Amino acid sequence: MKFTINQNILLEHLNYAIRGISNKNLRPVLNCIKFELTEEGLHLSSTDNEIAIKTFIEKNEIQKIDSLGEIVVSGKYIYEIVKKLPDELINLEEVIDSKLYITTENSSFTLNCNNATEFPDLELEYSKNPIILNQKVFKTIINQTGFAASVSETRPVLTGINFKIEDNIMQCTATDSYRLAVKKVELPDENIENANIIIPTRNINELYKLLNDDEENMEMHIFANKVIYKFGSLTMLTRVISGTYPDTSKLIPNEYELTMTVNFNEFFGAIDRASLLTNEADKNTIKFQTSGNQAIISSNIPEIGNVEEKISVTKDNDNEIKIAFNSKFMMDSIRALESEEIELKFNGEIKPIILKTPDNDDVIQLILPIRTY
Amino acid sequence: MKFTINQNILLEHLNYAIRGISNKNLRPVLNCIKFELTEEGLHLSSTDNEIAIKTFIEKNEIQKIDSLGEIVVSGKYIYEIVKKLPDELINLEEVIDSKLYITTENSSFTLNCNNATEFPDLELEYSKNPIILNQKVFKTIINQTGFAASVSETRPVLTGINFKIEDNIMQCTATDSYRLAVKKVELPDENIENANIIIPTRNINELYKLLNDDEENMEMHIFANKVIYKFGSLTMLTRVISGTYPDTSKLIPNEYELTMTVNFNEFFGAIDRASLLTNEADKNTIKFQTSGNQAIISSNIPEIGNVEEKISVTKDNDNEIKIAFNSKFMMDSIRALESEEIELKFNGEIKPIILKTPDNDDVIQLILPIRTY
Repeated sequence: MKFTINQNILLEHLNYAIRGISNKNLRPVLNCIKFELTEEGLHLSSTDNEIAIKTFIEKNEIQKIDSLGEIVVSGKYIYEIVKKLPDELINLEEVIDSKLYITTENSSFTLNCNNATEFPDLELEYSKNPIILNQKVFKTIINQTGFAASVSETRPVLTGINFKIEDNIMQCTATDSYRLAVKKVELPDENIENANIIIPTRNINELYKLLNDDEENMEMHIFANKVIYKFGSLTMLTRVISGTYPDTSKLIPNEYELTMTVNFNEFFGAIDRASLLTNEADKNTIKFQTSGNQAIISSNIPEIGNVEEKISVTKDNDNEIKIAFNSKFMMDSIRALESEEIELKFNGEIKPIILKTPDNDDVIQLILPIRTY
Repeated sequence: MKFTINQNILLEHLNYAIRGISNKNLRPVLNCIKFELTEEGLHLSSTDNEIAIKTFIEKNEIQKIDSLGEIVVSGKYIYEIVKKLPDELINLEEVIDSKLYITTENSSFTLNCNNATEFPDLELEYSKNPIILNQKVFKTIINQTGFAASVSETRPVLTGINFKIEDNIMQCTATDSYRLAVKKVELPDENIENANIIIPTRNINELYKLLNDDEENMEMHIFANKVIYKFGSLTMLTRVISGTYPDTSKLIPNEYELTMTVNFNEFFGAIDRASLLTNEADKNTIKFQTSGNQAIISSNIPEIGNVEEKISVTKDNDNEIKIAFNSKFMMDSIRALESEEIELKFNGEIKPIILKTPDNDDVIQLILPIRTY
């Protein structure tokens, strides 16, 4: 393998490949990036066995190709070296004793390489009929649900986001059993096979960092034990969590004793300030109590002090509510609703609180109350 | 005490006062900010007994003063509350049972206060003839010397920066006994008393964050056991380290076997890249060897690989040098020299390396070599 490439082009793609590596891996080859120079161009791949990333630099983006081949080299070192080289042409060449020789006009590095045959097969394959989604829409899904997934390994299925495809609707659900976030997306293509998988939130977050904010599409290829995403020059694989995701459809009521509308900024600001006088040990509990077209949000830490916030509410009937909840959970849920107005729905002080945007059921946030009264 | 003030004015000054607090303090009153509302305006002060900060809001910046007085309240809470309040008028009032009542149109907080009499006397006093220095110049002094101070408590005097005033020259020195940074500043006023004090680097760094980049002046009032800085609306006190700072004047030679000039960016880039293949355990050792008008910078980690960097040098004679040093120390020293060209001076492979800018002895950087040859 021997070729010459611009520093900034190689760095851009190393920036992608480095995300497939977790430096703590005990198998050295899993800390490596594989370079494969073919007739078509240069493939860079990496994997930690949980996710895999492969990126492609087309032949015409490579200044000069002298000979094809493949090498496997420490991801951390090749990345740091290319990052610190000046923005000029870099020569990369495999030399004897499987070493990689990296040179520019004034710099020359020699890096020991790993055995290319030890690098795992990435098992990248593609289904005939992948889901096609806008990258920005996919990022929104992650933003609106991911935070609600569990961080405790007690129930592994809850550490992921559930993607359920049924009748061309993709429903994404995350819950830590104290709160629940559901987002529904109608799929543009009508021939998508039904599926029901759980993707680890950690892996989804890595994918998130690779996506951009353009309206460009991505492909999602679902298999029994993995999902493969394709977008731009990138392919990413993530393992799925095995197990059955709990049926959460019964948790969201069809009827409510009281529905009210609040202003996004006013409500968020009040909860945010009230949360200053709460603490983790006490589940960040704050109280919410309506009286006519006003709601009082209050909390206290006895040794520090107390707070009372007033907001205006528009209710659909004369019922009043007096309820307590975790302020951090409430702020997460509000943030996930991109709307000037928010609907809050109640069925009494011991029943779940529902948050959504008016006239739209695409996103539903549910929070269990805390019993204090 | 009862007054009304704009949120952004109060926040600006709480931003200063909060820096005087270290939240880990076991004495609750040292985690507090003292509010003193006098005829002249509002003083906010804080101290952790190592440093003290006092800031002043003039009467005409306060919307309305109803009654004077003083209270002592948790710094963390008052700061977070004011930060999260909307940019509008805030009312602050001392209410019965020494509580502070903070209200805006829709928010009301009550904070328990500490006993004002327990708040320590800040011992702020001023000398008749303080040193007057440009704030930007003072920041440069810290940038050019602070990094060389020791982080080990073995010899406490080395954890500070030595300020020595003699014949209207202020010489600032820091050393961890492996490297040394010296900066000389000529004082504008000619009647400054001689002094020799050591200021803890940690305290100097807090001061650094409070200074701005304007050409505004600051006053430095030196006492036997403390230094007091005055600038803008702020007064800051720092304790000094007791003990005698080592005499470092003999360490910098008057004659050199070899002096060479290198380009700042070229030299820094080469050292930075070569340092990629060094490690802490091996003191980040890199080698430097001249041959005519070229120098080779090299290093290696046997299991990873090696690197060789070439730079051009302009020497004052035909002597050659072959020397090794800590690459991190070298990068710190280069960074401290604000100059397109750098002079490197050598007296053989076991003698200190000196770095300075050409035609200027205001800043001198010294690094001890590592014996490897």
